[in-house]
Amino acid sequence: MPFTPATTDQRFVLDHVTAIADLAQSERFAAASDDVVDAVLEGVGQLAEGEWAPLQRIGDTVGAKWTAEGVVMPEGFVQAYRDYVEGGWGTIGVPEEFGGQGLPFAIQTAVLETLGSANMGFALAPTLTVGAIEALAHHGSAEQQALYLPHLATGEWTGTMNLTEPQAGSDVGALRSTATPRGDGTFLIKGTKIYISFGDHDMAPNIVHLVLARTPGAPAGTKGISLFLVPKYRLNADGTPGDFNDVRVVSIEHKMGLHASPTCVLSFGDNDDCIGELIGGEFGGIRAMFTMMNNARLNVGLQGVQVAEGATQAAVAYALERVQSARAGGASRDSVRIVEHPDVRRMLMRMKAQTQAARALVYLAAAQVDRAALGEAGAQNRLEILTPLAKAHGTDIGCEVSSIGVQVFGGMGYIEETGAAQFFRDARITPIYEGTNGIQAADLVGRKLGLDNGAAFAALIGDMRAEAQDAGLIALIDACEEIGRGMMTLDADDKLAGSYPFLTMLSVATCGWLMERLGRATEGAEGDAAYLAMKKAATRFYVEQIVPEALGLKAAATAKADVLYSVEAEAFAA
Amino acid sequence: MPFTPATTDQRFVLDHVTAIADLAQSERFAAASDDVVDAVLEGVGQLAEGEWAPLQRIGDTVGAKWTAEGVVMPEGFVQAYRDYVEGGWGTIGVPEEFGGQGLPFAIQTAVLETLGSANMGFALAPTLTVGAIEALAHHGSAEQQALYLPHLATGEWTGTMNLTEPQAGSDVGALRSTATPRGDGTFLIKGTKIYISFGDHDMAPNIVHLVLARTPGAPAGTKGISLFLVPKYRLNADGTPGDFNDVRVVSIEHKMGLHASPTCVLSFGDNDDCIGELIGGEFGGIRAMFTMMNNARLNVGLQGVQVAEGATQAAVAYALERVQSARAGGASRDSVRIVEHPDVRRMLMRMKAQTQAARALVYLAAAQVDRAALGEAGAQNRLEILTPLAKAHGTDIGCEVSSIGVQVFGGMGYIEETGAAQFFRDARITPIYEGTNGIQAADLVGRKLGLDNGAAFAALIGDMRAEAQDAGLIALIDACEEIGRGMMTLDADDKLAGSYPFLTMLSVATCGWLMERLGRATEGAEGDAAYLAMKKAATRFYVEQIVPEALGLKAAATAKADVLYSVEAEAFAA
Repeated sequence: MPFTPATTDQRFVLDHVTAIADLAQSERFAAASDDVVDAVLEGVGQLAEGEWAPLQRIGDTVGAKWTAEGVVMPEGFVQAYRDYVEGGWGTIGVPEEFGGQGLPFAIQTAVLETLGSANMGFALAPTLTVGAIEALAHHGSAEQQALYLPHLATGEWTGTMNLTEPQAGSDVGALRSTATPRGDGTFLIKGTKIYISFGDHDMAPNIVHLVLARTPGAPAGTKGISLFLVPKYRLNADGTPGDFNDVRVVSIEHKMGLHASPTCVLSFGDNDDCIGELIGGEFGGIRAMFTMMNNARLNVGLQGVQVAEGATQAAVAYALERVQSARAGGASRDSVRIVEHPDVRRMLMRMKAQTQAARALVYLAAAQVDRAALGEAGAQNRLEILTPLAKAHGTDIGCEVSSIGVQVFGGMGYIEETGAAQFFRDARITPIYEGTNGIQAADLVGRKLGLDNGAAFAALIGDMRAEAQDAGLIALIDACEEIGRGMMTLDADDKLAGSYPFLTMLSVATCGWLMERLGRATEGAEGDAAYLAMKKAATRFYVEQIVPEALGLKAAATAKADVLYSVEAEAFAA
Repeated sequence: MPFTPATTDQRFVLDHVTAIADLAQSERFAAASDDVVDAVLEGVGQLAEGEWAPLQRIGDTVGAKWTAEGVVMPEGFVQAYRDYVEGGWGTIGVPEEFGGQGLPFAIQTAVLETLGSANMGFALAPTLTVGAIEALAHHGSAEQQALYLPHLATGEWTGTMNLTEPQAGSDVGALRSTATPRGDGTFLIKGTKIYISFGDHDMAPNIVHLVLARTPGAPAGTKGISLFLVPKYRLNADGTPGDFNDVRVVSIEHKMGLHASPTCVLSFGDNDDCIGELIGGEFGGIRAMFTMMNNARLNVGLQGVQVAEGATQAAVAYALERVQSARAGGASRDSVRIVEHPDVRRMLMRMKAQTQAARALVYLAAAQVDRAALGEAGAQNRLEILTPLAKAHGTDIGCEVSSIGVQVFGGMGYIEETGAAQFFRDARITPIYEGTNGIQAADLVGRKLGLDNGAAFAALIGDMRAEAQDAGLIALIDACEEIGRGMMTLDADDKLAGSYPFLTMLSVATCGWLMERLGRATEGAEGDAAYLAMKKAATRFYVEQIVPEALGLKAAATAKADVLYSVEAEAFAA
C-alpha cells in the first residue's frame, strides 16, 4: 500500500500546538532549529516510505516466527532496521550525554509517528527501546548508563518491558517473579513473563530486558516490587555482548494483528543462570515502571495516530480511484469516483478530522515532556493530566478510523489482500496494552483530576476556555468543568462509573480546542493550498460535528454506579 | 466457547414487541400458539448449543476450503447441517403450501438468531436459502415453485444470491452477465459473480443460484436486469439433481473473518452449458431482487444481534471468572472478579443493553413482515421504514458490542485462542454486505422518509411519542421528527450528508421506545428473577445513557454538505 509521510500536517502541528520554535529558544533544545526539524521530518519520511512501508504486508502475512533458536523476523526487516539504526533515527530524542541528539521529545514523537504509520508493528521495536532508555536515564546507575545507554540510544540494542505475568495483568502488584541476591550485588532472576513485545528477534546483537520482580521478603503488592536490568547476553569486560543469560523464549502469541511484532512468553532463569542488576533502589520498581510507562503511554496513543493515518491514506487512495454509481440528485447518469458521494466524503472527512485531532492531542502531551524537562511551571501536571487522554482517546480514534477505513473499501475491505483489514486488526490491541483504556479513565478521575488539589485540571479548563470561540465547544468545556469538579466529591464507584465517558468528553474538548486553533492558523497561512483547504475543512468538521457528539455523553458521565450494581454479578449471565 | 440460547429474552421480546399472541389470533398464524413457540425456541436452542456452537472455532481456524472438486466444509458441518434439515428448522417460516410450517417470520427470526449466535458464519447458509425461498414464492412460476420450493423449504438444497460483479458492487445496474434465449424458454447464462456466500459447499446435493443478468438488447442500468434460476445441477424429469450445469467455483476469498462461510467467485457458462430459467418477467430482476434482499437485510441486521449475543456471553463468562485487582475504594484489599469493577460493569451493561435493543429493533421489523402478510394497515410501510434501521443499526451494534467484548478480555482478547477476536472479525462484514450501511442511510432519507408523502414516518414518530415517558427519549423523538421533516425539503447532497447520523438517531429512538416498554413490562412480570432484574437494569441503562448520546448527533445530522464539498476531491490526499 503506498504511503506518504504526513510531514506537512506534522510540521503544522509542531508549529501551532507544540510551539516548537519556543522550545528551540531554550539552551537544551537549541538544536531544534527550523532547518533541523524539516530535515528530520523529511529524512525519516524517506526511510519510512522507501523501506518500512513496503514491509507492512509481509509483516502481517508472514509475521515474526518462533523457532528453537529464537524469533526470526520476516525477510527485509533486519536490513530495514539496520538502516534505521545507521540513519541515527533512534538517537533523536536521547540526551546528548547519553549519545543522543538531544532533540525535543515532540520531534521524536513525529519520527516514531512516521515510522509507525508506515509499519506499526515494526515501529513497536524502537518505541519500546525508548521506554528502556527513559527508565535507565532516570533511575540507572552511572555505570549502567555508560554501559547500556549508548547502545540503546542508537537502537543497536533494543529494549523490552517485562511486567505482566499470567496472574498479574492490570494488577501488576500480583506478580511473582523473584530476584535473589547472589552476594556480589547482582541478582538471580526467575519467573515467567507474558505479552513481551519484541521479547526476542534477530535484528539486534543484544536485547535489554527491564524486568519487575520481588526480592526475598519483599512486602506484598506493588510496594515490594523492584526493577531489574536483564540483558539477553551478559556483557564482557569490554562491554560487548558475551554469554547467554538464560532468558528463553517459550512461545509467541497467535494474535489478531500486529503480526510483525513478536509477543513473547519469556522464561527467566530456567537453568538458574539468569543474572540481573537492580535499577534504582530496592522496591523502587513501581516508580521506575511509571517513568518507563508514562512515555510509553504517549507512544501507544501515538500508535492510534499511526494506524489512523495509514488507514486514512489507504481509504482516500481507494475512494479517489474506485468508480461506482452516479451522483444522487446530479444531472449526469455517469458513474463517479466514490469520493464524490456525500456519505463517502463524510466518512473520509471524519477519518481526516479524527486523525488530525489525535495527532494534535498526542503532540500536545509530548511537548509537555519537553516543557517539564525545561522546568516550565505547570508542565509536569499538564503532562500527567494529558497522558491518559492521549493514550485512551488516541487509541480509540485509531480503532474508529481504521474501522471506517474498512467501510470505505466496501466488500474489498473485508478481503485481506487490500490491507484495510490489517489496520483494523492491528489497531485493536492499542486500547488494551500499556494500561487498558479503562485504567486510563480510572487514572484520570482517580489521580489526575485531584492533582494539586484540582489546580491542574482547572488550569487546563482555563486555557481551553480562554481560547475557545465556538459556542458548542465552549458548552463542552463548561460541561467538562462541571462534571470534573463534581467527580472529585464522588465515591470511587460513582466516579469510576462515569470515568470513561468523561475521559472521552475531556479528550474531545481538548482536541476541539486545538483543532479550532489550527483552523484559525490556516487563515492567511502560506503553503500547499490543498493541504490548507483540507485542514480548514477538517478542523471545521471536528468543531461543528464531533464536538457536539461528545456533549451527548454527559448523561453517561454523570449517571453514577447505581444502575450497574442494581443486579448481582451473576445476573449478567441470565 | 460455551453458548446458552437467549431463549428467555427472545420470548420476552416476542411477547412485548412483536405481540406474537396477537399474530396467533389470525387464521394464517394460528399454529403459533404459546406452546409451539416455546417448543421451537427450546428445540432450536438445543441444536445450536449442542451441535452448532461447538463448531464455531473450527469454522474460523480451518474454515471452508476451496478444492478442485468444489468447496469443502470443515469437519462436523455436514452432519450438523443435516440435523438442521432433518429437525425441520428450515421449514419454520415457509408457507404451508410450499411444504413449510407457516409460522410467523418473527419466529423464524428467533430460530435464525439462535443458530447464528452459536455460529454466525454457518447460519449464513440457511439465511441465504430464506432469500431464495422468498424470491421464488413471490415471483416464481407454479412449476418452479413445485420443483424447487419443497427442497429449499427444508434446507435440503440451499440458495444463493448472485448480484455482485467486480465492476458492479453497490451499483447493481452496472452488471454485465448475460442471459441468451435458447429458443426453448430457457437461457444460456454467462458471466462472473463475486462475493457469493455459500456459492459452493458439500452440505447439500444441489444449490439453487438466483442470478441477475441481462437479456440481449436489454436497457442499460437496473431497468434491463432480469433474475434467473440457475441450479448447480439441472433437474432430472423426476425432479432429482442430474447433470452439472456449468457453474464453476473459481476461488474463495481470503477474508478477515466469517471463515465458515465460503465467499465464492462463481463463473457461469465457461463451457457455454449453463442453463437458467427466468423468474418473474423479463426486466423484473430488480423487483425480485428487492423481495429477496429486503428480508435478507433484516436477516443481516439479525446477524448483528447474533454476534452481539455471542460476544456478550463470552465476555460475561470471562468477567465472572477472571480475578484481578481489589475493588477501588473498598475496604478489602483482596482481588475480585473483574465483573465487580465499575468500568467493566459499564462495558458489560452496555453490551447487554445494546444487544437487547438490537434484538427488539430487528424483531419489530420482522413482525411487520407478518403483519403485512395479514394485510394489516400500515404494516408494509412500517416494514419499509424499519428495514434500513434494522440492517444498519443492528450491524453497527454487532460491531460495537464485539469490540467491547475484546476489551473486556483485555490482553487475552487479542489472542485468537480465546474466541473474542473471532466475534470482532466476523462482525465487521455485516455493515458492508446486503447494501452497505451508507446505502441503508441513503434509502432511509431518499425513499423511506417520503413514503406515502411522509405519512409512514409520521406514523412511526406518532407511535413512539404516544408511548414514550422519559424526557430524554421524548427529546430524541422530537429531534428525529424535526430533522426528518427538514430532510424532505433538502437537496440530495445535504440530505445524504446527514443521512447516517440521522439513521442512528432514529434507530436509537426506536430502540429507546421499545426498551422503555420492555422495562415497564418487567414490573410485576413472573419468571426468572435474575433475568427480569437484568432486563430492567439494561433497559434503564439504555434509556438513561444511550438515548442521550444519540441526541449528540443532531449537529451532524443537520450539518448539510457544505463542509464536505469545501475542498476538491484530491485535497483529501493532501
